[in-house]
Amino acid sequence: MRITVICIGDELLIGQVTDTNSGFLARTIVPEGWEVERTEVVADDAEAITDAIERALSRTDVVITTGGLGPTADDITKPTLCKIFGGGLRHDPAVEANVREVMSRRGREMNELTRLQSMVPESATIIQNRVGTAPILMFERDGKTLVAMPGVPFETQEMFVAEVFPRLLSRYSSGISVAHSTMIVAGISESMLAEHLAEFENSLPESLHLAYLPKPGIIRLRLDGHSTDANALNAFMADYVERLREATAQWRIADNDLPTAAILIERLRERGLTMATAESCTGGNIAHEITLIAGASDVMAGGIVAYSNSVKSGLLGVDPDLIAAFGAVSIPAAEAMASGACLATGADIAIATSGIAGPGGGTPDKPVGTVCVAVASPSGLISTTLHLHGTRQRIIERATSEALLMAISAL
Amino acid sequence: MRITVICIGDELLIGQVTDTNSGFLARTIVPEGWEVERTEVVADDAEAITDAIERALSRTDVVITTGGLGPTADDITKPTLCKIFGGGLRHDPAVEANVREVMSRRGREMNELTRLQSMVPESATIIQNRVGTAPILMFERDGKTLVAMPGVPFETQEMFVAEVFPRLLSRYSSGISVAHSTMIVAGISESMLAEHLAEFENSLPESLHLAYLPKPGIIRLRLDGHSTDANALNAFMADYVERLREATAQWRIADNDLPTAAILIERLRERGLTMATAESCTGGNIAHEITLIAGASDVMAGGIVAYSNSVKSGLLGVDPDLIAAFGAVSIPAAEAMASGACLATGADIAIATSGIAGPGGGTPDKPVGTVCVAVASPSGLISTTLHLHGTRQRIIERATSEALLMAISAL
Repeated sequence: MRITVICIGDELLIGQVTDTNSGFLARTIVPEGWEVERTEVVADDAEAITDAIERALSRTDVVITTGGLGPTADDITKPTLCKIFGGGLRHDPAVEANVREVMSRRGREMNELTRLQSMVPESATIIQNRVGTAPILMFERDGKTLVAMPGVPFETQEMFVAEVFPRLLSRYSSGISVAHSTMIVAGISESMLAEHLAEFENSLPESLHLAYLPKPGIIRLRLDGHSTDANALNAFMADYVERLREATAQWRIADNDLPTAAILIERLRERGLTMATAESCTGGNIAHEITLIAGASDVMAGGIVAYSNSVKSGLLGVDPDLIAAFGAVSIPAAEAMASGACLATGADIAIATSGIAGPGGGTPDKPVGTVCVAVASPSGLISTTLHLHGTRQRIIERATSEALLMAISAL
Repeated sequence: MRITVICIGDELLIGQVTDTNSGFLARTIVPEGWEVERTEVVADDAEAITDAIERALSRTDVVITTGGLGPTADDITKPTLCKIFGGGLRHDPAVEANVREVMSRRGREMNELTRLQSMVPESATIIQNRVGTAPILMFERDGKTLVAMPGVPFETQEMFVAEVFPRLLSRYSSGISVAHSTMIVAGISESMLAEHLAEFENSLPESLHLAYLPKPGIIRLRLDGHSTDANALNAFMADYVERLREATAQWRIADNDLPTAAILIERLRERGLTMATAESCTGGNIAHEITLIAGASDVMAGGIVAYSNSVKSGLLGVDPDLIAAFGAVSIPAAEAMASGACLATGADIAIATSGIAGPGGGTPDKPVGTVCVAVASPSGLISTTLHLHGTRQRIIERATSEALLMAISAL
């Protein structure tokens, strides 16, 4: 089954908000053999919404819209849906009761504007939104279904999984089985890898497809398969996944689609080791990436964000003379920070960064993007100096992923 | 001038990668009076790409595509563009030289696959991609322009600003002036605020429009204006911005569109204060949000990620008896962490969090989502217990923004 996702909202088109709903919907439906055929982002504009919906309904059996259902004047999705599917708005007492309850859970009272949420299109079937005030609206036309959901990611995501997708699954059944397998390689460029895997790619049957998904420092390789015969597909996939594993053995760092931080956590857990961070330019982002992973507490002792030199000395025990001699952005300082973090936290290994994330602070010797990374582990110290480009955020993110990869390589 | 953005790539439609290019393009062109009319995300599929491009060219004068230009077999944008605009592929020696140089800067050699990047459509004007291997392709048809850019955000963004947009600006001039003004309010719900601002909204002239952009804990209010008369528009805007400021005085925390962390940094800088963080469940995310802001080093001393209790005691001086009596997730522990962070780093104020981000670790007394937040400042300690819902990531993000808002309110 193929669906279209239409995200509605001026805030998306002026770049003030990034759409994350369509990605979530895709990740939810793909394992069930469904596909997102297309995603469109349109303005809070009746004509644009109508055009996108009519085209989507002509192409796919299911259309999901997100956004534009709020109680304020700029949200015009509801009247537009009335025009498309016929009928006017009606008051729904069950929605009003739900709005009152959601508001009271948030410690607020329902006012006139929130009460407007209980005006719903006559032509829609209503799904109560347990986690927000905008009800979910389902429309049917010519055997096709449109579901209008709120734009708030938390509400869309929770309600899609709990209420909307189960209904769609029981309404439409898909004859196609889909399988995906992702592995992660590091230390080789996309084009070198593609050259290395040319023979493997040529050997793939029609029903399998290899995709390269490069990210800073790593490449995710995804093998996609589809077939009407689930058993045959699974046998096929298992065989080709094994061949791909062999072909990528020397660069492969994970056999499934894990964040780099999760790969590091897994390696540490296998070895019964704990870790710490000592971050200057990455400012807590390495610790954040680690602690985003559920179960990080098994291996993560803690970390120090050593932004000022006095914190580098005071909490990490970096000798001020060393900083005076080499500078805070130097291999000796990064190595001393890593060793100091092990001592300060009692962790077995530590990752340290010191660098210039910019836009200010660069010098001819150490331009913006210079980042020293060190890893202290039971097998000793390793370190390197990165020369990164781009915005402050990009330098921080890139230094973070390189530091995590370095820690993995140290294990 | 209105443009359409078409993002090409299966990885976007299965939700493995989130499109951030269209938002960047929008943020770049909107201040120049340009608009993104629509964004579409389509598969690496010739028919879908062709359909999206033909429709876009019928609607807007400028179309930007991103992605699908890589050297691997799944990237089919280039041959598809040849079919649309006519002609075949030709070898471009200047592109080959650029590819070789970009590869050598990355410490790699050009191979056969990367060399394919120098095959370009005969019908395209070429813009050299200084930061990547895929050249940028400009096509003209019937007075309209299509620019095909790579999908790697860093490359698209850098080259759009440096080369593509300046050419588009000189090719098309816009007669419409646009103005935006954003302010941020906290401590009131969207619907209460909309009720409060109903009169203001009704007083707005045709050419001005107020949008509500809620985010966890805050609402961004954006006043948009457009006019063919730039002077009149500026006078209008200034007047209504002032009225909106007055109407929102008691909740307004910023007069422009700043991240919460930037608002906090500005307040600290004004008062000549420094800050620190002591994070348990937020795991470094508060420090990360702060240090993402250029100039954070003016006010940020450092932080401690105190994941284990031994780090809470060892580095933050939290009394182990206090943790034994109240638990690590408690107001006394969070307050002791905040005070301890001031002492450990010498900072004037400190933000501390201790909570259960989940999915494991909850108890009937302290379910997942319980987060204690404390702020120590020269005027004393303030603290609160949050009861958050959702995924681990959402709880971390929400606790981070609430903690930053609490620090702002303490100043």
